[in-house]
Amino acid sequence: MTDFPTAAMPLQDGDLLAAVDLGSNSFHMVVAQSLLGQLRVVDRLRETVRLAEGLDARGGLSAEVRQRAFECLARFGQRIRDIPPQRVRALATNTVRRLAAPQAFLMPAESALGHGIEVVSGREEARLVYLGVAHAQPSKPDRLRLVIDIGGGSTECIIGSGFDAIERESLQLGCVATTRRFFGDGKLSRRRWDEALTEVTAEFQQFAAAYRALGWDDALGSSGTNKAIGEICAAMKLTKGAVIADALPHVRDRLLQARTIEQIDLPGLSADRKPIIAGGLLILEAAFDALGLQRLMISKAAMREGVLYDMLGRGGADDPRDAAVAALMQRYGIDKAQAERVEVTALHLFDQVAEPWQLDADDRLMLVRAARLHELGLTIAHSQYQVHGAYVVEHTDIEGFSRQQQQFLAALVRTHRRKVPKTAFDALPDRLLPSARHLSALLRLAVLMHRAHEGDPIPRLDARAGDGSLALLLDRQWLEARPLLRADLEGEPQGMAALGVRLQIGTA
Amino acid sequence: MTDFPTAAMPLQDGDLLAAVDLGSNSFHMVVAQSLLGQLRVVDRLRETVRLAEGLDARGGLSAEVRQRAFECLARFGQRIRDIPPQRVRALATNTVRRLAAPQAFLMPAESALGHGIEVVSGREEARLVYLGVAHAQPSKPDRLRLVIDIGGGSTECIIGSGFDAIERESLQLGCVATTRRFFGDGKLSRRRWDEALTEVTAEFQQFAAAYRALGWDDALGSSGTNKAIGEICAAMKLTKGAVIADALPHVRDRLLQARTIEQIDLPGLSADRKPIIAGGLLILEAAFDALGLQRLMISKAAMREGVLYDMLGRGGADDPRDAAVAALMQRYGIDKAQAERVEVTALHLFDQVAEPWQLDADDRLMLVRAARLHELGLTIAHSQYQVHGAYVVEHTDIEGFSRQQQQFLAALVRTHRRKVPKTAFDALPDRLLPSARHLSALLRLAVLMHRAHEGDPIPRLDARAGDGSLALLLDRQWLEARPLLRADLEGEPQGMAALGVRLQIGTA
Repeated sequence: MTDFPTAAMPLQDGDLLAAVDLGSNSFHMVVAQSLLGQLRVVDRLRETVRLAEGLDARGGLSAEVRQRAFECLARFGQRIRDIPPQRVRALATNTVRRLAAPQAFLMPAESALGHGIEVVSGREEARLVYLGVAHAQPSKPDRLRLVIDIGGGSTECIIGSGFDAIERESLQLGCVATTRRFFGDGKLSRRRWDEALTEVTAEFQQFAAAYRALGWDDALGSSGTNKAIGEICAAMKLTKGAVIADALPHVRDRLLQARTIEQIDLPGLSADRKPIIAGGLLILEAAFDALGLQRLMISKAAMREGVLYDMLGRGGADDPRDAAVAALMQRYGIDKAQAERVEVTALHLFDQVAEPWQLDADDRLMLVRAARLHELGLTIAHSQYQVHGAYVVEHTDIEGFSRQQQQFLAALVRTHRRKVPKTAFDALPDRLLPSARHLSALLRLAVLMHRAHEGDPIPRLDARAGDGSLALLLDRQWLEARPLLRADLEGEPQGMAALGVRLQIGTA
Repeated sequence: MTDFPTAAMPLQDGDLLAAVDLGSNSFHMVVAQSLLGQLRVVDRLRETVRLAEGLDARGGLSAEVRQRAFECLARFGQRIRDIPPQRVRALATNTVRRLAAPQAFLMPAESALGHGIEVVSGREEARLVYLGVAHAQPSKPDRLRLVIDIGGGSTECIIGSGFDAIERESLQLGCVATTRRFFGDGKLSRRRWDEALTEVTAEFQQFAAAYRALGWDDALGSSGTNKAIGEICAAMKLTKGAVIADALPHVRDRLLQARTIEQIDLPGLSADRKPIIAGGLLILEAAFDALGLQRLMISKAAMREGVLYDMLGRGGADDPRDAAVAALMQRYGIDKAQAERVEVTALHLFDQVAEPWQLDADDRLMLVRAARLHELGLTIAHSQYQVHGAYVVEHTDIEGFSRQQQQFLAALVRTHRRKVPKTAFDALPDRLLPSARHLSALLRLAVLMHRAHEGDPIPRLDARAGDGSLALLLDRQWLEARPLLRADLEGEPQGMAALGVRLQIGTA
């Protein structure tokens, strides 16, 4: 199990990549082969786990659904066993986001899959959906495109152009959850439908005006719900497979001829989709109303394809996370020269201790990002700025990062100076703790060395790491001329003890 | 006692204004008369309360020092009894900032003074110090000026030009606190001095490089400590009253001829200043070292004069708080059109209920600011954005605002939508609770009315407020055409119950 399952290495032709999507309705896996910078899908798996069905009001997950999920993941795990872990990403979405104790689900789930699982925010999910659709149906870069993805637990709406998402919204509305919420007892009626439609439309109203103001040239619906409704429209001979505004009332009336979900009889609808079509259709009707949609074409691509294309860009010059970090540096007015000084020194230390501390290329990237963002909180206030910076890094939707990666980054920002609080790493899964603590130790030292914020180069630092220890050797003459740094370093072994690192400082 | 003691009204010639400064060493009060937009000081009071002396490590305040403070404030209170409360501002600084339970001190302190007391952040203190010095010693607008103010509990360093502070820093280093920290047992020695100097200089190092890079043309020292050291330099015939780099070692050596603080014998030093001169001189020596200062001229102005000049600008076109709010809107990319729609509707409601709810002109200003900032958190994330916005508003050093004002504004941002948490107003003193809850109710309604983020004008809203109640009358036809708004309004009486407001909605 690698710490951060993101490809920080360039791909060779023929390399396999896999994306696993722990959706709220189905779990998907797609395996693709890299070929001349493109991807060729070689395998697809899908299982209807209905994770959202097991979620209770307190954020618990029923034993039955947990079991279903683990068994599915074990099967998926078998398929990816031979793919190097850096080329596999497994993402969980809305239902896992809503668990009160996500680790209690994620830890056995990761064991079953044999790979780390990342939780992504709704807006990151939206970005990945768009990326998948945009690669599957490329369009001219000057055309704006609206993409609507109705998942089991959440619905993503994106406006983008080319491969870039411009607006991204994620609503806590999915076909499984919405069916449960409004038709939980299985009964259907026109009155209930209208009341539910008002509530669901209100959710879209939050951003509908902004979206309509920006506008779009084409609208595309991804996800199983949109695909199913397109197929119903075709089977009812209302369209050739797209969804149009005039067709929806007919589909809805036909659905409401049934008094219960059991009795739903829609042409072209699979048995598997029947229990959740009511919520899905309701969401789509609300989206048409709120956004004034006329026509929605269907895309078969989804988040999992986006994840694969995202991996192609990672670690290279196009890594979207670099742009996201640069945008944060810009917004929060971070002193770039200082960030770079800290980054250089942190990496100089990293490269000396990576092997004994078992730090990998992804850890190196996280250290770079933490160095770039560590002063972010200064824009809010000088006092306790490490706390403010960690808050922003943890809560902002940063493009390309999973929740855990943001929590990891936030923990490094939080602990880069002053006392390390006992709870600083609590949000992280156990498997990430050793590298988080070690990277924090390296960042702390780099920040100390540059505390004066001056451009003078610092001499070579010799670092030697052991199991839970770090020996730092400094140039004696240089250190003797720096009483302030000496005073700082004297206090540091104590600060670093909280990271589980015994720091020894020597001079030569 | 007014809710926010800030002059939101224009001043007439002859009007009196007063500023009270609850410093960590002395309490000051200055009374001035407005004359042609300028101020003429008519009275000054100063008492050595030594508030910082009573602060223990847990943030408690000794009974003896509390008593000394209350007695002083009662005397000050007598002097301001006849000045309208909107023209009086009383500010507390570092020691009160560090109290574990500031309200336990502030409530009786406000009773003794007969006026509300605001706690200001270190950076706001720095801004006010600079404003005071800049008015007392105007300089050409193209000249940069460094101002150092060594207080009892904190030291402020500012670089400014004209009346504007460009860089503001506040260090947790004051003459009272630093003397206690390094010479708490009353003993002096050269070795101790050198060790302490290293530590104190390190504090200045945090920003010294940035300050030196920006540079300055003149350096001015305000505060009693700088004035005292200037007088010692003059009495020792080292300078004519300024402090120069070459003079400081002589003053320090003379000070260290004493083995104890008791025995200090410095020409020109008052008995009152003797117990705290060691810490003050240490801080000044560190500032000279870290900043490479050669010469510091002495200014007699201080924060209290800045407070008076700040009042002159308030409520008028030059209110620095308007610029600060606009800067936040800019930084966080707030949708200005939406903010303005909400502001207009909120004020339309305000003006109908201000009288029965006893809301005043300052409350109206706070509502305007909350309307402008309520969507700030959207830049961080859409989900729970009211929480993120409140975090930023509470923790950012916003120019011109006291701590309580920021907490007040943060509470409005926090409660402008969704459920009102029980703890939302906990940071506010009791006297501000009724207006905070009432303004929150008005902001919530205004946000609801514009939830669609559309530019369509809304019809006149009739609002009638009673004791704990608000009756809203809406145009029937208009409301009937808006099922989403109707659904939102149906849930609102419940949301508003948490604000202690019974909301009734009617149509006509």
